[in-house]
Amino acid sequence: MAADVLIEGERVVALATTGSAVAEGWSAQTVIDASGKYVIPGGVDAHTHMELPFGGTYASDTFETGSRAAAWGGTTTIVDFAVQSVGRSLREGLDAWHAKAEGNCAIDYAFHMILADVTEDSLKEMDLLVDEGVTSFKLFMAYPGVFYSDDGKILRAMQQGAAGGGLVMVHAENGIAIDVLVEQALAAGRTDPRYHGEARRELLEAEATHRAIRLAEVAGAPLYVVHVSAESAVAELAAARDRGLNVFGETCPQYLFLSTDNLAEPGFEGAKYVCSTPLRPKEHQAALWQGLRTNDLQVVSTDHCPFCFAGQKELGTGDFSKIPNGLPGVENRMDLLHQAVVDGRISRRRWVEIASATPARMFGLYPRKGTIAPGSDADIVIYDPDVTHILSVTTHHMNVDYSAYEGMRVRGKSATVLSRGTVVIDDGTYLGRSGHGRYQTRSTCQYLS
Amino acid sequence: MAADVLIEGERVVALATTGSAVAEGWSAQTVIDASGKYVIPGGVDAHTHMELPFGGTYASDTFETGSRAAAWGGTTTIVDFAVQSVGRSLREGLDAWHAKAEGNCAIDYAFHMILADVTEDSLKEMDLLVDEGVTSFKLFMAYPGVFYSDDGKILRAMQQGAAGGGLVMVHAENGIAIDVLVEQALAAGRTDPRYHGEARRELLEAEATHRAIRLAEVAGAPLYVVHVSAESAVAELAAARDRGLNVFGETCPQYLFLSTDNLAEPGFEGAKYVCSTPLRPKEHQAALWQGLRTNDLQVVSTDHCPFCFAGQKELGTGDFSKIPNGLPGVENRMDLLHQAVVDGRISRRRWVEIASATPARMFGLYPRKGTIAPGSDADIVIYDPDVTHILSVTTHHMNVDYSAYEGMRVRGKSATVLSRGTVVIDDGTYLGRSGHGRYQTRSTCQYLS
Amino acid sequence: MAADVLIEGERVVALATTGSAVAEGWSAQTVIDASGKYVIPGGVDAHTHMELPFGGTYASDTFETGSRAAAWGGTTTIVDFAVQSVGRSLREGLDAWHAKAEGNCAIDYAFHMILADVTEDSLKEMDLLVDEGVTSFKLFMAYPGVFYSDDGKILRAMQQGAAGGGLVMVHAENGIAIDVLVEQALAAGRTDPRYHGEARRELLEAEATHRAIRLAEVAGAPLYVVHVSAESAVAELAAARDRGLNVFGETCPQYLFLSTDNLAEPGFEGAKYVCSTPLRPKEHQAALWQGLRTNDLQVVSTDHCPFCFAGQKELGTGDFSKIPNGLPGVENRMDLLHQAVVDGRISRRRWVEIASATPARMFGLYPRKGTIAPGSDADIVIYDPDVTHILSVTTHHMNVDYSAYEGMRVRGKSATVLSRGTVVIDDGTYLGRSGHGRYQTRSTCQYLS
Amino acid sequence: MAADVLIEGERVVALATTGSAVAEGWSAQTVIDASGKYVIPGGVDAHTHMELPFGGTYASDTFETGSRAAAWGGTTTIVDFAVQSVGRSLREGLDAWHAKAEGNCAIDYAFHMILADVTEDSLKEMDLLVDEGVTSFKLFMAYPGVFYSDDGKILRAMQQGAAGGGLVMVHAENGIAIDVLVEQALAAGRTDPRYHGEARRELLEAEATHRAIRLAEVAGAPLYVVHVSAESAVAELAAARDRGLNVFGETCPQYLFLSTDNLAEPGFEGAKYVCSTPLRPKEHQAALWQGLRTNDLQVVSTDHCPFCFAGQKELGTGDFSKIPNGLPGVENRMDLLHQAVVDGRISRRRWVEIASATPARMFGLYPRKGTIAPGSDADIVIYDPDVTHILSVTTHHMNVDYSAYEGMRVRGKSATVLSRGTVVIDDGTYLGRSGHGRYQTRSTCQYLS
Repeated sequence: MAADVLIEGERVVALATTGSAVAEGWSAQTVIDASGKYVIPGGVDAHTHMELPFGGTYASDTFETGSRAAAWGGTTTIVDFAVQSVGRSLREGLDAWHAKAEGNCAIDYAFHMILADVTEDSLKEMDLLVDEGVTSFKLFMAYPGVFYSDDGKILRAMQQGAAGGGLVMVHAENGIAIDVLVEQALAAGRTDPRYHGEARRELLEAEATHRAIRLAEVAGAPLYVVHVSAESAVAELAAARDRGLNVFGETCPQYLFLSTDNLAEPGFEGAKYVCSTPLRPKEHQAALWQGLRTNDLQVVSTDHCPFCFAGQKELGTGDFSKIPNGLPGVENRMDLLHQAVVDGRISRRRWVEIASATPARMFGLYPRKGTIAPGSDADIVIYDPDVTHILSVTTHHMNVDYSAYEGMRVRGKSATVLSRGTVVIDDGTYLGRSGHGRYQTRSTCQYLS
Repeated sequence: MAADVLIEGERVVALATTGSAVAEGWSAQTVIDASGKYVIPGGVDAHTHMELPFGGTYASDTFETGSRAAAWGGTTTIVDFAVQSVGRSLREGLDAWHAKAEGNCAIDYAFHMILADVTEDSLKEMDLLVDEGVTSFKLFMAYPGVFYSDDGKILRAMQQGAAGGGLVMVHAENGIAIDVLVEQALAAGRTDPRYHGEARRELLEAEATHRAIRLAEVAGAPLYVVHVSAESAVAELAAARDRGLNVFGETCPQYLFLSTDNLAEPGFEGAKYVCSTPLRPKEHQAALWQGLRTNDLQVVSTDHCPFCFAGQKELGTGDFSKIPNGLPGVENRMDLLHQAVVDGRISRRRWVEIASATPARMFGLYPRKGTIAPGSDADIVIYDPDVTHILSVTTHHMNVDYSAYEGMRVRGKSATVLSRGTVVIDDGTYLGRSGHGRYQTRSTCQYLS
Repeated sequence: MAADVLIEGERVVALATTGSAVAEGWSAQTVIDASGKYVIPGGVDAHTHMELPFGGTYASDTFETGSRAAAWGGTTTIVDFAVQSVGRSLREGLDAWHAKAEGNCAIDYAFHMILADVTEDSLKEMDLLVDEGVTSFKLFMAYPGVFYSDDGKILRAMQQGAAGGGLVMVHAENGIAIDVLVEQALAAGRTDPRYHGEARRELLEAEATHRAIRLAEVAGAPLYVVHVSAESAVAELAAARDRGLNVFGETCPQYLFLSTDNLAEPGFEGAKYVCSTPLRPKEHQAALWQGLRTNDLQVVSTDHCPFCFAGQKELGTGDFSKIPNGLPGVENRMDLLHQAVVDGRISRRRWVEIASATPARMFGLYPRKGTIAPGSDADIVIYDPDVTHILSVTTHHMNVDYSAYEGMRVRGKSATVLSRGTVVIDDGTYLGRSGHGRYQTRSTCQYLS
Repeated sequence: MAADVLIEGERVVALATTGSAVAEGWSAQTVIDASGKYVIPGGVDAHTHMELPFGGTYASDTFETGSRAAAWGGTTTIVDFAVQSVGRSLREGLDAWHAKAEGNCAIDYAFHMILADVTEDSLKEMDLLVDEGVTSFKLFMAYPGVFYSDDGKILRAMQQGAAGGGLVMVHAENGIAIDVLVEQALAAGRTDPRYHGEARRELLEAEATHRAIRLAEVAGAPLYVVHVSAESAVAELAAARDRGLNVFGETCPQYLFLSTDNLAEPGFEGAKYVCSTPLRPKEHQAALWQGLRTNDLQVVSTDHCPFCFAGQKELGTGDFSKIPNGLPGVENRMDLLHQAVVDGRISRRRWVEIASATPARMFGLYPRKGTIAPGSDADIVIYDPDVTHILSVTTHHMNVDYSAYEGMRVRGKSATVLSRGTVVIDDGTYLGRSGHGRYQTRSTCQYLS
């Protein structure tokens, strides 16, 4: 059913049947004709890492370049990860990330907080942050010596979150065991990028996923597992959800569209696809799509964390463990997922859910974000489902020297993008500005009531 | 976020932020103040049996009395079951049901079709009925000699449905095995109503559910299982859904709120609670609620099929197998489910989904029914979440001489009910009329794309 | 550890360490030197159909030819199926089978009873038969109109068995649904043997297996599922056994070594491999082997039921549903399973269990049969694990004009075979005689205490 | 079937049918009349901790007192755990345990090795120990700072074991998470013994069990999980075994017969029942028995590790975490398990399997131990199934001041016990001597071929 949307200032104020007397009676400064296109809530990318320091370098997109690229791709909110440094407070990390983002974003943004150092003090700080709108906290079962927390620390954070309203997110890989396999691989001369995928065994993602679920059960806490890539990990989530647990799972376009075949590309090309959890054999994709259909996976984010091939990915020449982990993608998510609609993998309704409505609810941004309803922010995408284009570094707007999807033809593209009522993309032109994007405080996860 | 709803004629035409200029600018003939109340889409009860002939008698609610009671309870659409007689065409059965309903309903209504005689002819008729808006077909694995179809017939109907767009619904109980147990129970002098529950073993519901799923898998067809009551049957549905199958499950308020304790009430009182699938031990309720939360069950309908205690239920004195199967409930569903919201069993959002939005989508009535959006029918309930009342035969409007929930105190009640823009209930007064309700053709199940 | 076996008359009387004073002190009429070979209990084939009437013809092996072939293959006991005819008593069927076997067998034999007509009378007869040593009863979920029993009849037989000590065996395929698919296949011109395998869908074996388990659960009865061929059916057995149910499963060499590739052999060759349950795609074999290792399958029998290609299998030319169902194999079982030992699929110990000890215990023949211990029958095979030979119609002793394993090279062969102390096979010569074999009464299943 | 057993020196040399000419012809120095009793292979207790240093004290049974008590209870072989100290070699630990045991044991004994410090050196030593007959290695997922190994170390040990033939045994509890809960319990004033059971959450045993399985899968190694006490841990084992993995599980009499009710006994009495994994609520016992029946658990050992109540258990007054972990039981195992036969929980055959034959095979002692066959050691128990006695500290022979089963009446008792042909217990008299027991080298696990 066709409807007109009336925007006043930054918000949607009314919807009316197209052609009805009431709609015809509206007078507006600007009228956007969306006939033949979809009018959808702007995308919410709940997992980005702009300017992240990692492996001795920094993710190549700043909040300025990255948020602009997001807008190009029909995403109007990002939730980035502020990072606590070991030995420092959460506050300090959060302040640093505010400083990076403020005044630079083309679209609205919010923060999760990475807990890298679980102490009595940082646990107490969790509650303070929840109160001021940072309501989710990521812990790592991977990366010993860097972000890694042991099971006792994860349990404590979960207990704190359960009591104070914070949602614990985990990177679920058994990093302790993986480091043994990585060391053995390198010692055996298996140094190419593809061994990154082999050493980070699927079963060690499934194991950690299972363990995180059990710890959450002990803590009586909800759980959000980021970047699920393995079929067996999806099975763990499905089993937990069947038992009624508040366990949620996110996957990313790279796991849905890429595979170990990419990691095995000749020369050092595979480095472009190094991220953790790693890409899996193609056979896993079907399980991820099924998980999205069965709602065992609820959200598709990008884990956008770009590193240029030249100078950055190349740090790992001759030693895959030195390749900075991460892929670009914030600009491509909405279109890749729409291609899945075209391919019959998900329904159109599901596309909007996993890309916008659900992440908004999951992370306390709904109904400000994630829907088009009277009172919601006018973050709206006029999406043309029929235009075909080719993903490429030559045309994308992310600040990175390659595309993970180079040459892929997709159908569907944002024609016009509004952020809080302002047109920021229209017909192939960027009309926005750095600093338009505002920081968003978040309420707690809306799937727990 | 508060919003005003503008209705023109029978439809919703616009929504606008309460207090906004555009909303303030609306002029309306009638204004209903819903402040402090919920404005929700009218309930869709996808499983009723008005005037059903069963066991030598008839369900005591006519379309007139039953649809009026539904309106009282905040339900604005019912989907009733037309019945094919053995040896007759589907058309004949459908015509008979049209004749019963036409001109008599207070609210809108549609039909499923019961296939009691699967033949080459009736299979062909399925496609015709789909084309004209009867898009779902119920088959019985129970009731040998009455409605029963064997597995070959069910398979054929599923194949036909898969090809032609019809959704097969099944009553999943192994009737052949149950009849043995019933006969043995009666032979052993176990004739009281509670033996109805004992003979119809839980495992035989689970078994039939599993079998129906397998047959659907062989046919490549979707499946909707009606009135799921057993924990083990929910487990079968959950397992099937985990595998990505288009398998759906419905439960009913009686299974969520009543139990074998009721069947075992002294004297012949238990007869009031005789229905099939039967009520289960209390312990099963938790699994049903969990299934509703995890979406392994998607719909709550009533299976409304009332028989008066006096003269009807009493047919089974001394022989539980002669008690007409069925319970009244069409008027109570919305309030009982809202009580579950109050009790924290389901969220408010989930209440609207399982009672209205999902059945509308499942059976091809959405977005005409099941939502409040520009263009949808103005089937709207102004629901007062704070008023407390007591369910009782002395106050209900169903044409039956007892309430299955006699004395139960619930919080929440429909204050005003609109059917296609017409106020039919307001502040405790019925303002509707028989014949206002219109027959609704249905599109095919919207969960299959 | 090497030991000498002392036989007196028909029984084993003592075992002693080879070379010990006590062993050296023995004097024996005959000494068989088994050095370098295995001394194992003779095989027990718990599923044969000598002279079975089926599809208008008869299995081509008589008790005389079939039992002799069994002896050649190292099997010293067969349990064959006596058949009740519809409308007749169990007794009558049993008597008929006694008449066929008596005086004709080269090795010992016993009977299961096929219940083709479950009535009050035949149920009562079950108890009588148990008392006289026929302690297992087979029912068919397949073959409507022939051996088929509906779920109510199966339930009754299970109840009777649970009360009286009889073990119910089922042929688990949903014959009602399969008949629909067979009819559709033939109608579509898919008449070749391979469509036999396609129409008898794997899921319909799994479904029936699940249903049989549920019915056994309702009856409180143990269950033995014959000729399991599908991976998904093994999964049903495994799940039931995990729950502690007394559910047992048998598979056959044809499912372990052959596949739908054989059914699809060019021309009408596939007819040689037509049996029910049908051969499955090769991928299923791994699950069957795993089931044997994990003890989710306990027994390997042959379902020996040979029909000559010429004149018998050919009855189904142009209509696969007319091909008599059955394969020869009684002579090949021990060697095929030993080949699996050679291939590392099962251990030597497991070989003896699944081929001899477990069927003896399952069907109440242990410790008379199935072991070499003081007091047990001297049914002993001296097995040469190192000799290699080729299976072929040109060398086998079964009365059938083809071998299902034509040309297969296997390692291991019976060198000497004793039946109750008498050498019946020695060094490639048959030394036995028809009528040596004696009927064996059986105690009840020994896995239920 | 009754048979006579002929022993020459330390070994069984022959079996013969009782009353047969050959048996009658035997002349023996000593004849033991076992009529009316069972003649079974002596028990093999694969998990004891004589003289174990723990929590600042020592297990109160020495090899002398403990092995003698074992003999009293019908156990003729123990496998004790030699302990590596952190920073020291395996050899050093093994030598120390040899020194403790040598010349002191009443019955035969062998050693597992506890790996407390996984290093390049200790990994290499594993292979050496396997070669000399110490073929199993225990690692701890519990007890951080004491025996604990992280997942990387466990993975390495599993890899080494898979390559070299060593079987890895794990104590499966998530000790890191448990320590958090213990600390929280103590901080909250929950210091009584029963909080030992509450803090060591069931889910954290299940989690660790699952993790150990996954690590074994990654390493391609078999796994033996010691002292399984939680229903959910059994489920993990069952699931792994269904997938065909070489995963084994042991439980102990205390988990089968005692529960958290004992831990909650008034005063400090609960301390008597403090061990890890802890006792569980009574409801778990059914799952353990079922696991023993379904072979998801294969072995019942005692984890015998006694501490006197006075002076030892009392170390934990006011702080349950200071109570030495362990229970006495080596003398009670055979009788408790026979009581389970009497109670119908397991069959007589299964009793011998789980108490003797299977542990012998699991740990490479078979057929020397665990069976009565020509060539096997004459470790034989003449077991009287009909005598009833009461377990009590006043009558037991273990060096500990309480019985965990005080007052329990059991049916069945060893009448005569032979160790390698020598009568060590007869009719209530100990006839053995310290030093009779000999160290047993072991081959590798016999379930892996």
